[in-house]
Amino acid sequence: MTKSQSASGGVALWRQIADAIRLDIVGGKLANGDRLPTEALLAERFSANRHTVRRALAVLAEEGVVAAEQGRGTFVKSIRRLSYPIGKRTRFREGLRGQAGSLTSVSISDKIENATARVAEALGLKPGTKVVRTESMSVADGVPISRSTTWLPYRRFPDFAARIKEMQSTTMVFQSYEIADYSRASTRISARHADFEETRSLNLAPGAIVLVSEAVDIDLEGEPLSYALTRFPAERMELVV
Amino acid sequence: MTKSQSASGGVALWRQIADAIRLDIVGGKLANGDRLPTEALLAERFSANRHTVRRALAVLAEEGVVAAEQGRGTFVKSIRRLSYPIGKRTRFREGLRGQAGSLTSVSISDKIENATARVAEALGLKPGTKVVRTESMSVADGVPISRSTTWLPYRRFPDFAARIKEMQSTTMVFQSYEIADYSRASTRISARHADFEETRSLNLAPGAIVLVSEAVDIDLEGEPLSYALTRFPAERMELVV
Repeated sequence: MTKSQSASGGVALWRQIADAIRLDIVGGKLANGDRLPTEALLAERFSANRHTVRRALAVLAEEGVVAAEQGRGTFVKSIRRLSYPIGKRTRFREGLRGQAGSLTSVSISDKIENATARVAEALGLKPGTKVVRTESMSVADGVPISRSTTWLPYRRFPDFAARIKEMQSTTMVFQSYEIADYSRASTRISARHADFEETRSLNLAPGAIVLVSEAVDIDLEGEPLSYALTRFPAERMELVV
Repeated sequence: MTKSQSASGGVALWRQIADAIRLDIVGGKLANGDRLPTEALLAERFSANRHTVRRALAVLAEEGVVAAEQGRGTFVKSIRRLSYPIGKRTRFREGLRGQAGSLTSVSISDKIENATARVAEALGLKPGTKVVRTESMSVADGVPISRSTTWLPYRRFPDFAARIKEMQSTTMVFQSYEIADYSRASTRISARHADFEETRSLNLAPGAIVLVSEAVDIDLEGEPLSYALTRFPAERMELVV
C-alpha cells in the first residue's frame, strides 16, 4: 500500500482531496464551468502524488461533480441538489415538483411487527402494539434520492402496504381511509454516515453522508398517522424549512 | 500497514466498525447502559482482528459514546445530542435552554467585505455592497456545538461586530439598533464532511460530519437582517422543525 492511500484519521487521502474540492465547489470558490487546477498543482497543494489526485478526480467525476474534457482539463459541473421543503404541509411529490423530470416511489418490502418503545412513543401507542412497517425509496430521474422506513398503526391501516403499492401516494392511501387531510407534527433532522444497506440501495460511495429526517404526520384531530425515518443522500438533497 | 488498517472505499475498517456500533446505538438496537458484545465477537462480526476492534472502541470512548469498565466490559453511554429548534421564531439561546448547564458564544473574528453574489442575494443587496462578516462559535458545557459565519448589511449595522462582542446576543444587538423583533425567513439544511478549519475549531475527529444551516432572518417589515451559515457537529446536535 502506497503512502498516498494511507488513512489519516481513518479517511484516505484521495477522499480528503475529493472532499476538499467538493467543498470549494459547494462553498463557491469554484463555480460551474471553472477549470480545476492541473493534477500537478493539486498534487502539490495536497502533498499527494498524481495517482492519488487522479483517484480523487475520478470519484468526483463519478459523482457528476466534475467532468474531464479530452486535452482541455477537468471542469466543474454544478452540483444540482434537489430541495425538499419541510413545513406544516409536507407532501413528497408536491415538494419536488418541477425539480425533476420523473419521480417514482418504489415499495421494497413490508411487514407487521410489534412497536418498539420509540415507534410506540411517536405514534402514541403502547409498546408492543401491532404496527405496519413499510420500506420504500424514491427515485428522481433515475437517481435514488430517499430511503424510508415508515410505521403506521395496524389497527387503523391494516392493508396500508397493499394500498401504497397500488397507489404509490401516501396522500391517496390516506384518502382511501377517509382521511381528508393530514399535516406534519414534527420533523427531527440529523446526519450520519450511510450504513451498508443504505450505501447499496441509494447507490452511494462508501463513506457517503445521509440526512436523516424523523417525521410524525397527524390527522385533523391530531391523531398520529405515521412515523417515518427517511434517509436522504446529502450529496443529492437538501431540506428547506 | 496491516490489513486491519487498509482503506475500503476510502474509509478505514476501524472507522467502519465505530460507525456501525454508533448506528446501533443511535438506531436503538443498543440502549444506554447495554454491554457491548465482547471484542472477540465484534472481531468476528466485522471480519477484523481484535486490534482493529479495540481501535474502534477507543474512538467511541473518546467521543463519549461508550465507556470501558475495568473487568466488566464496554458499556453504552447514551449519545446526548442537543436539539436545536428551527421555526419562525428561532433564538439560539432560548432554543437550547434547559439542555445545557452553560452556553457561551465566542466571537472569533470580523471584517468588512464586499458581498459575493450569494450573500448579496440572501440579503437583498447588489453584489459588491459592503457587508459586515463575523465568525463565531458557541460552546455548551465546554463542548463546541456550532460554528457560524454571519453577514449583515454594513450600512445598517456598521458596528455590529463590536456590539456582538460586548452583548453576546444577536437579539440584544438588534434591539440596540431599535429592531424590536425579527423572524426566520428561511432555513436551508444540508450535510457534509467538516473541512479542516471546522475539524479544528469544533474539536472533531477527521471525517466527522457537520449539519449546515443557511438562514436568513428578517425584521417586521420583511427586510433581511442577516445571512448566517452555521455548521453543527452532527454527532452533538440535531435540528428540530
